[in-house]
Amino acid sequence: MSIVKSKIRTIPDYPKPGILFRDITSLLIDPEGFRLTVAMFVERYQNEKIQKIAAIDARGFIAGAALAFQLGVGFVPIRKKGKLPGKTISQSYALEYGEDHVEIHVDSIQAGEKVLIMDDLVATGGTLEASIQLIQKLEGKIHECATIIDLPDLGGAKRIKEKYGINIYSICEFEGH
Amino acid sequence: MSIVKSKIRTIPDYPKPGILFRDITSLLIDPEGFRLTVAMFVERYQNEKIQKIAAIDARGFIAGAALAFQLGVGFVPIRKKGKLPGKTISQSYALEYGEDHVEIHVDSIQAGEKVLIMDDLVATGGTLEASIQLIQKLEGKIHECATIIDLPDLGGAKRIKEKYGINIYSICEFEGH
Repeated sequence: MSIVKSKIRTIPDYPKPGILFRDITSLLIDPEGFRLTVAMFVERYQNEKIQKIAAIDARGFIAGAALAFQLGVGFVPIRKKGKLPGKTISQSYALEYGEDHVEIHVDSIQAGEKVLIMDDLVATGGTLEASIQLIQKLEGKIHECATIIDLPDLGGAKRIKEKYGINIYSICEFEGH
Repeated sequence: MSIVKSKIRTIPDYPKPGILFRDITSLLIDPEGFRLTVAMFVERYQNEKIQKIAAIDARGFIAGAALAFQLGVGFVPIRKKGKLPGKTISQSYALEYGEDHVEIHVDSIQAGEKVLIMDDLVATGGTLEASIQLIQKLEGKIHECATIIDLPDLGGAKRIKEKYGINIYSICEFEGH
């Protein structure tokens, strides 16, 4: 098992019975684990001429901000509805029951800019897909998406690759939900 | 005016009429501005033997994560109620109407550890004060609190200094609310 994966703890029955929650706080609290996580992203993207890191509220901000700083590129937050103060565009995505929205500032991405989208985890891929749609509305060029964890049994990364032709890079995978 | 301050934009009447919202997204999107912000924190704390950065959800995560990575120390999230999956302690704080809570994982700070608390902004200081109380319950030793912005007219930093003897360092100040 990779060092990064070994430092991610699993919390059973959170947020509800039967779910195994993969908790990155145990990775982030470990200086070696956190540094290695960011270093793997730096290694992958340092020569790719990324211009913006668009990171998803709130856990995506953590590795996203550290990476943006290391690469010396701008950091753009993608947030839940009503959290951004400037002029935004919004995109809905389906939840198990109902829907939710993510938003981005309209002036945060220029047409043609090379953007990396970051989150902590890809499961069904709903938030990531909505984020892709936001960046595409602003005519950003999405290099790929990056997460610490993929849950391949939920199929989000595969579905996004097929639907949008956009790759999802993840440092590690876990089985189950 | 400092470079950092000059890159923070003001959005009038957000989140409600009469409020001047100081928006750090214009700073974060600027590679020079974001790097300089983090570099100022690194310069201030690199020889202070900080052991944990406890950062407040969600904007506090951004500079907090970049700083934790640069200092090579653990990152600890302080989050709104119900967002952390492990065993937590909780602390309430007053809002204009009603109250809210912040939480921290009980195993995230060891007794005696030197902790830096980070957020993007200090206004009345309610969230920061609740975060101080959480760290003190876990017997962490708070080095100081760090924010990008202080709104001194709201008195939060002064009140916390008087009540807890804990310093709040901010890179820049803005007048008004």
